[in-house]
Amino acid sequence: MSHARIGLVGLGVMGANLSLNIADHGFPIAVYNRTGAVTDAFVASAGDLAERLVPAQTYEDFVASLSKPRAIIIMVKAGGPVDAVIADLGPLLDEGDMIIDAGNANFHDTRRREAALREKGLNFIGMGVSGGEEGARHGPSIMVGGNKASYEVIRDIIEAISAKHDGQPCAAHFGPDGAGHFVKTVHNGIEYADMQMIAEVYGVLRDGAGRTPSEIGALFEAWDKGPLKSYLVEISGKVLQTADPKTGQPMVDVIVDTAGQKGTGRWTAIEAITLGQSPSTIEAAVAARSWSSEKATREAGQALFGDDAVETMPMPSDATLEKALLAAKLIAYDQGFKILIAASSTYDWGIDLAAAAEVWREGCIIRSALLDDMAQAIRAGLPHDQLIFAPTFADMIREGAPALRRVVAYAALKGLPIPAFANALAYFDTMRQGRGTTDLVQAQRDFFGAHGFERVDGGAGQHGPWAGTVSHS
Amino acid sequence: MSHARIGLVGLGVMGANLSLNIADHGFPIAVYNRTGAVTDAFVASAGDLAERLVPAQTYEDFVASLSKPRAIIIMVKAGGPVDAVIADLGPLLDEGDMIIDAGNANFHDTRRREAALREKGLNFIGMGVSGGEEGARHGPSIMVGGNKASYEVIRDIIEAISAKHDGQPCAAHFGPDGAGHFVKTVHNGIEYADMQMIAEVYGVLRDGAGRTPSEIGALFEAWDKGPLKSYLVEISGKVLQTADPKTGQPMVDVIVDTAGQKGTGRWTAIEAITLGQSPSTIEAAVAARSWSSEKATREAGQALFGDDAVETMPMPSDATLEKALLAAKLIAYDQGFKILIAASSTYDWGIDLAAAAEVWREGCIIRSALLDDMAQAIRAGLPHDQLIFAPTFADMIREGAPALRRVVAYAALKGLPIPAFANALAYFDTMRQGRGTTDLVQAQRDFFGAHGFERVDGGAGQHGPWAGTVSHS
Repeated sequence: MSHARIGLVGLGVMGANLSLNIADHGFPIAVYNRTGAVTDAFVASAGDLAERLVPAQTYEDFVASLSKPRAIIIMVKAGGPVDAVIADLGPLLDEGDMIIDAGNANFHDTRRREAALREKGLNFIGMGVSGGEEGARHGPSIMVGGNKASYEVIRDIIEAISAKHDGQPCAAHFGPDGAGHFVKTVHNGIEYADMQMIAEVYGVLRDGAGRTPSEIGALFEAWDKGPLKSYLVEISGKVLQTADPKTGQPMVDVIVDTAGQKGTGRWTAIEAITLGQSPSTIEAAVAARSWSSEKATREAGQALFGDDAVETMPMPSDATLEKALLAAKLIAYDQGFKILIAASSTYDWGIDLAAAAEVWREGCIIRSALLDDMAQAIRAGLPHDQLIFAPTFADMIREGAPALRRVVAYAALKGLPIPAFANALAYFDTMRQGRGTTDLVQAQRDFFGAHGFERVDGGAGQHGPWAGTVSHS
Repeated sequence: MSHARIGLVGLGVMGANLSLNIADHGFPIAVYNRTGAVTDAFVASAGDLAERLVPAQTYEDFVASLSKPRAIIIMVKAGGPVDAVIADLGPLLDEGDMIIDAGNANFHDTRRREAALREKGLNFIGMGVSGGEEGARHGPSIMVGGNKASYEVIRDIIEAISAKHDGQPCAAHFGPDGAGHFVKTVHNGIEYADMQMIAEVYGVLRDGAGRTPSEIGALFEAWDKGPLKSYLVEISGKVLQTADPKTGQPMVDVIVDTAGQKGTGRWTAIEAITLGQSPSTIEAAVAARSWSSEKATREAGQALFGDDAVETMPMPSDATLEKALLAAKLIAYDQGFKILIAASSTYDWGIDLAAAAEVWREGCIIRSALLDDMAQAIRAGLPHDQLIFAPTFADMIREGAPALRRVVAYAALKGLPIPAFANALAYFDTMRQGRGTTDLVQAQRDFFGAHGFERVDGGAGQHGPWAGTVSHS
């Protein structure tokens, strides 16, 4: 029996593609699937790469086919199935072996599993993989967390199979236990915001200006040659210009407007809020998907309230929309990076923020031309941990903010929902207001709950003279 | 030794006031505090009510002074201290006795404690109490969860001490285990949104129109005589018209604009998102408090971006602001009630939504004239579980939405942050859009992740023809 340095359990679409990617880079790989026929079919369809695949029909054979220390990627549905595979594999492994969860795990699960396996002398790596099927096969973005020394054992394989940006691998180790899966979760949260903002521009153009999907798609295609250049803008251009083979209608017009979610957007919002962060653009994107599922309610709302626009402003120009989208997007990334900063501090991960931006430059869903600039800005140091305060981006925001204002005002008057744009603007306006309005909130809290407040002249723990000195001037 | 039907552990401000309230209504009450001197001082300062207080210096004496089944309210800091008191008391109690946690517990803790005590034959009641010190002493709003039969034993006491609306007690049992604490949590979430919206109006008037706090306060005072009549509008009027005795300046101008939060707003957001809900107005209020703490960052942002307004619309009139605030507030309640509906379904609580509105009519922080109308609308049945779809409120929204649009557009152009208003409007516009924009999101998801989509003509689980048929028309 030949020996492989690495193995993979779970030959679904993602696992199969990742296995082929590994084999394609010259690494023999042991493969196992619970249903053995799937393994056979996979090897049979692998063509020339089959010679580097080491199929096994039992966990015992699978484990025996691996050289030590063993490195086993599991790519099964997140949650219970991961624990089930670990329970089966664990007893067959030796001290120093490692299990690598490449699924979309919740990082709390990763932390729990890492701690449990560490007690048994085993290493557990939580590895976020982004890029869909295509990425898995030809180069995903890979976010690793767990024991650093263990990662070093397989680092050459992981870097070889990852996407590349100017020859640099889009794979990095971000810290112990759940750090990699957390970075992947925030990636997905940003992805939600990015997609929602694009959808809002689509809505403004469709329902505000009456443009056809094909016209809007052509606009995205043009924007993909400018500062918005990104995978999501590119595919939006393609998607909107695609016709339904059955009806000849624009494809998007045939698709029901109820978006699914697999949970990572919600996780991002929940974990961020738990960490004291409020990534309002991501929250808005999660909300938009959640509300989209209430289709019957929305139809009833339309019947009840009809067209609700008031006197409107002029429709923003295409250039205004482009600038607004860029500004809103930068704000979403600002909020996303702040979550990583907060989590890294809370969990003592030591996340290299610039490395996150670098790893996202290629292979993943949010890859874009901007991420290289972001990485450089982060390496240069973010003032107050704010991406939008960095000189390059502050300039972009200065140029984009007026556009964002016009789009938000236009949509508000026209009756078009733009929750992510509105939240991006509200965040920006909050973060450039040295004196906000929560002085009133603190006063209210002190009035009814004696919570106290700080005084601008330095006094702390004060209470207001509310009862006695109310004047009705 | 005299016997009391009820006892209370924890004579802090809230516990002391609640004890006096109970005694004031003719019920003898056993009282205990970890530091015995506090108990002595409390009884010594209770005046005539001291004769109904049964102080104890040990848990043994305290328990012995209660008639069976024993009912013991604990009013200590949420979290570990509650568990500590339960651990001390539990062994001294007999089957059928009950412990009532009247603090601001997280309902997950309440569920855990209820289950643990039930196994030991003890009853655990989670009781949310709103109204601050003043409410605790003279009539709070009380939200009860736990064993219904146990609650019946003390119901006369709880109803007697609660606030009253037209003679009806503002106290109700909402369901088993954590139902009461959950209703209280959502109450606080709505309170966050309510306060934030008031602060946003304050900001628009202060920074948009250059009004003084005293002028703004007078406006709130006037609004408190109209449809916005509520405790929070009332106290905002008072707070804004209060002068600092030290400097003579308006009190709010002396208060640092960094709002604290004790966690219930965050809990509401986290639990709502976990339940698949997105209460965006509450999320915005949580965000505003969170961002307010980043004062140095906001000051740096102001230095960096300065005044960022673009050509503006006319400042909305006072009447427009009033209508906008009313519409935004109704939307916050709509979102709050939807959280209760979702939680009641998930945890099988059977929450009476109308009872929640009724209990909130008096005694609590969000008490307002509108809550009676809301209760009636809920009893009549909410179309699609939407408060804003109920005839009374749909009319108010129809009148208020144009105002809300103008305020959001004005603030967006003027550079004033109004996250809660903007989110209220985005939600309304989403929920009255029969065809939204998430068709594009679904198309994107299918493009990169083969997630599939539903077709408007009924086909499900389809995939788009993205690869082959992209046209560049």
